Amino acid sequence: LSAGNYDGVKLLLSPVQPVDIAQAIGTLPMILQALAFRLLNKNEAIEVYEYLDPSVQQNLLDRLRSNEVLDLVEEMSPDDRVRLFDELPAKVVRRLLAELSPEERRVTAQLLGYESETAGRLMTTEFIDLKEFLSVSQALKLVRQRATFSETIYSLYVTDKERHLTGILSLRDLVVADPESLIGEVMTREVVNVRTDTDQEEVARAIQRYDFLALPVVDLEKRLVGIVTVDDVIDVIEQEATRDIYAAGAVQAGDEDDYFQSNLFVVARRRIVWLAVLVLANGLTTQVIAMNDEVLKQVVLLTAFIPLLIGAGGNVGAQSSTVVIRGLSTQRIQRLGLFRAIAKEALAGALLGVSMAVFVVPFAWWQGQGPLVATAVGISLIAITTLAATAGASLPLLFDRMGLDPALMSAPFITTATDVAGVLIYLKTASWLLGRLG
Amino acid sequence: LSAGNYDGVKLLLSPVQPVDIAQAIGTLPMILQALAFRLLNKNEAIEVYEYLDPSVQQNLLDRLRSNEVLDLVEEMSPDDRVRLFDELPAKVVRRLLAELSPEERRVTAQLLGYESETAGRLMTTEFIDLKEFLSVSQALKLVRQRATFSETIYSLYVTDKERHLTGILSLRDLVVADPESLIGEVMTREVVNVRTDTDQEEVARAIQRYDFLALPVVDLEKRLVGIVTVDDVIDVIEQEATRDIYAAGAVQAGDEDDYFQSNLFVVARRRIVWLAVLVLANGLTTQVIAMNDEVLKQVVLLTAFIPLLIGAGGNVGAQSSTVVIRGLSTQRIQRLGLFRAIAKEALAGALLGVSMAVFVVPFAWWQGQGPLVATAVGISLIAITTLAATAGASLPLLFDRMGLDPALMSAPFITTATDVAGVLIYLKTASWLLGRLG
Repeated sequence: LSAGNYDGVKLLLSPVQPVDIAQAIGTLPMILQALAFRLLNKNEAIEVYEYLDPSVQQNLLDRLRSNEVLDLVEEMSPDDRVRLFDELPAKVVRRLLAELSPEERRVTAQLLGYESETAGRLMTTEFIDLKEFLSVSQALKLVRQRATFSETIYSLYVTDKERHLTGILSLRDLVVADPESLIGEVMTREVVNVRTDTDQEEVARAIQRYDFLALPVVDLEKRLVGIVTVDDVIDVIEQEATRDIYAAGAVQAGDEDDYFQSNLFVVARRRIVWLAVLVLANGLTTQVIAMNDEVLKQVVLLTAFIPLLIGAGGNVGAQSSTVVIRGLSTQRIQRLGLFRAIAKEALAGALLGVSMAVFVVPFAWWQGQGPLVATAVGISLIAITTLAATAGASLPLLFDRMGLDPALMSAPFITTATDVAGVLIYLKTASWLLGRLG
Repeated sequence: LSAGNYDGVKLLLSPVQPVDIAQAIGTLPMILQALAFRLLNKNEAIEVYEYLDPSVQQNLLDRLRSNEVLDLVEEMSPDDRVRLFDELPAKVVRRLLAELSPEERRVTAQLLGYESETAGRLMTTEFIDLKEFLSVSQALKLVRQRATFSETIYSLYVTDKERHLTGILSLRDLVVADPESLIGEVMTREVVNVRTDTDQEEVARAIQRYDFLALPVVDLEKRLVGIVTVDDVIDVIEQEATRDIYAAGAVQAGDEDDYFQSNLFVVARRRIVWLAVLVLANGLTTQVIAMNDEVLKQVVLLTAFIPLLIGAGGNVGAQSSTVVIRGLSTQRIQRLGLFRAIAKEALAGALLGVSMAVFVVPFAWWQGQGPLVATAVGISLIAITTLAATAGASLPLLFDRMGLDPALMSAPFITTATDVAGVLIYLKTASWLLGRLG
């Protein structure tokens, strides 16, 4: 999606949506932001505010009069308010919390109490719950009354008097049902739900799997406490994909949204950890070469193929770990089974090694002026790619089995690990061949 | 999301949803699949069928009686039917198309006419369109009648007599509106829409940006022809993320869903293209080393640091290209501007090079027994990381500007390109130092 195309879409999307206003305000100088923001009417203002970048939201909080701020924060939907509070200094949060109305304060404090990246943090408490004894027409009246205070009116929840979730129905069900029948008769009793402590990625998977618009969240006593809506889930899916991509590129996970806004030292800090691990591992490669320098002294041209060999091994290993980690994260690998997946990658590695050898060995024969370098390169190439593919597939799977994040075994790590093994295989093969042929 | 956790979610999600039945059928032996499928009642069968894997769908088509098949295909929603037809052999598609009812045939042929990965292919034609002169209560009655034939009833579209899209309203708007008022009065006239030829990634971005449940699709004459719903968009977002991740891991893009189902040779074919490019580039590195082997003959220990240097350069370059490509794809980099983004990455590269040099240079001094190797390693390390970060940031941006896919300049390519340059810098520095110090 290039920048040019995107402008095209924007033209198509010319009508003024809150998110567009929010973006326009975001591009203004700081002093003008508050001015522009005051021009919006109150309902618009709240909607636009929820779409602003955290940094712009903070600037506005600083510049608006405190009663304006309070109005704004009071009217925000609870999940967006919690996301704002996550970004603000603790002192400001405490002050704002104290000034909220008791009801909103209770809700916000409750949401802030859940761990981040769980269903509890993601959910909103503004949903419509019905009772089984209501008739369909009574329920429709209730939905109409509460439509403006609720995040969605399309998914409706049925609770008993202890607020336990007993059923679910959609507005579609309600609209097509006989007005005289009871909610208890039209609702679905088998409800897919998550708990407040369910990881946000699992919430996203569930909504994606079942094509739901919202998912109910229950607490440990199975009482309905909130709902997660599909729009929040899309952001989670993108965030998790960015995290996987960063892991594959040896960039530490963090607040992915802000990479391009954070300063140079934050950027460097998020990258140095991985680099340090990789340099350390490469230090081992250096040691291996230094300890086997006898063979290199005899045939200097062997050196010329070290980058090619470790490059090929690294790339094959990176491919295998990429495919396996993504397969774990989209849960498509489960269909194949652990050992079959590893065996298949190992075979693919060997096959790729052989294919490359067909071209590389003649080149090495010509470049290395004889069979020694060519044979050493050929044997090592196939051994290295097979090993790299096996390691690339099995290490993430092993980590996953041990309950660790498989992304730790991502491409850069596998690449570096195969460097050490690759150089060792190559130099040992060469010195063995030198003993026999030389 | 580990396999263990996932089982936990499944327990929570115990109620039987169509997608769960589909998965259960998918795990049965082929002969039993048709048997199990016949046990479902007709409505269930259609829903379950839409969730089955393409390979299972095909198997069922082969095994069910032809009138059963026809019933099934006739009742599927048009977008799912088109997705099935995409997977079937052309002959089967022609036969099935010929046997459909005229209306369904027309719709399906129309959808099949749009290019894949566009809004036209993604959309469904089953939506509810209203007229401006209807009253709210008339409209509600219409929605109730057509609820079962429509993919969503929550987004409603208003067209004039030429079927041009003139407005949009949600069922929420309809439910809270005065029953006597006219649709023309309650609808929103500024409609965000896409065209049939809009790329599916742009459709996904628009829905994500505006938090919509569905987006109307118009043809070149601005007539409303279909809608894209949020559940299809979630799959697109995941598919595009997988594509980016595969590109970063040097695996060719393709049908990502099927990687773990495809056979060994398909797997190898999708990986050999990239590997061939990388081996070719590494052949250049080999050449560079072979042409500069004089200096290596004099100081063999220089060799020991080649893997470390190209490893460090490759990793820094991979980090920069990962961050920039992801930034382009999530459109977060635009806020920073082209040159500032490149300059920032270059500075980060230099900073990271210096940080690594602090540890690597003393190690090289000890290992290389003197200042020559240490100095060459230190100078090259900083030069290589700076260069790698600059290339990693600028090449994807350049490709994007030229209208090419920036993912072509992904981590594996940058890594290999910096190998060549890195070795050249290192050996030239070493031989220059040798001339001065040695």
